[in-house]
Amino acid sequence: MESQSKRQQIHEENSLISSKTIYKGSLITVRNDKVKGLGDAIHDYDIIEHPGAVVMVPVDSNGYLHLVKQYRRASKKILLELPAGTLEKNEEPIYCAQRELQEEIGFKAKKITPLGGFYTAPGFCDEYLYLFLAEELEESSLDGDDSEMIDCVTLTLNEALNLIEEGEIVDAKTICGIYRYLRIKDTCK
Amino acid sequence: MESQSKRQQIHEENSLISSKTIYKGSLITVRNDKVKGLGDAIHDYDIIEHPGAVVMVPVDSNGYLHLVKQYRRASKKILLELPAGTLEKNEEPIYCAQRELQEEIGFKAKKITPLGGFYTAPGFCDEYLYLFLAEELEESSLDGDDSEMIDCVTLTLNEALNLIEEGEIVDAKTICGIYRYLRIKDTCK
Repeated sequence: MESQSKRQQIHEENSLISSKTIYKGSLITVRNDKVKGLGDAIHDYDIIEHPGAVVMVPVDSNGYLHLVKQYRRASKKILLELPAGTLEKNEEPIYCAQRELQEEIGFKAKKITPLGGFYTAPGFCDEYLYLFLAEELEESSLDGDDSEMIDCVTLTLNEALNLIEEGEIVDAKTICGIYRYLRIKDTCK
Repeated sequence: MESQSKRQQIHEENSLISSKTIYKGSLITVRNDKVKGLGDAIHDYDIIEHPGAVVMVPVDSNGYLHLVKQYRRASKKILLELPAGTLEKNEEPIYCAQRELQEEIGFKAKKITPLGGFYTAPGFCDEYLYLFLAEELEESSLDGDDSEMIDCVTLTLNEALNLIEEGEIVDAKTICGIYRYLRIKDTCK
């Protein structure tokens, strides 16, 4: 017997009435899909299309994590986050990761390990974030985007965990990345 | 001395040239902000406005976590996620959490503990997710949104952790919620 979710997938893929681009910005595109539901219902989905991005857990030889602090217009707050950035057209995630490390924290990683990734908001947005562990850091600056004014912050893993659990780190990708690193450390003990 | 990020915040709040609604959908609104940068630069930000949402870690008396499996149009995949849902207008997050638990997994929680929350994609979207631990579950169904065809899945904590680390769970809020629950369990040992 097919599962409900599988039936939903088959149904939706066969019942698309229209798919229209509503808005094309420099980063995101908004698409509206209309899908015939059960009976006479028509379901309306607004989907944000995003090029995808990378997020890195940079750990130096002393075990410090390197984070960035920046003002975010969307949240209207200064947030403490792992370094991250958007994929350029046809850019391999691992190259994007090295580029963003150099732009945001002024290091490149001699050792970089892919740790899978995740969708940030799959209810309405297709953004997929590739997660990397970045180790054996060496100084290497690239000029960042001049619209970014970023502070670098170094933390021990325990300090970072406390900041999550006290509600000072409130960015989902950063929480995912730091906990994943904790698990890797714990498993290696 | 002011930090870079603080200077960015003051600068951006004082240098807004225009803020326009580009599109108003049933769930999301797209806003375009133009901000005067340093020198003559004008920066352009597309911001997705979202009503906010809740995500729950439901744990039954046998220690099983209750997740949902559903087809997501944005990712074009069936995803395994913690139950979650969007805040209705003026709805308190804790009421939304109880409503969504009943709609999505057919339980309400006699004990519900707020665990803070997080922004899903603060680079371009203001969605804030409130996280709850839901315990002492008792059966109580509410009819869900009929566009949702959802399968319920129960997992031990270890099974859920393995699915994250094997790349089978790829939803950021679900990863945040499961790891946070692991930390609470570990701390209570």
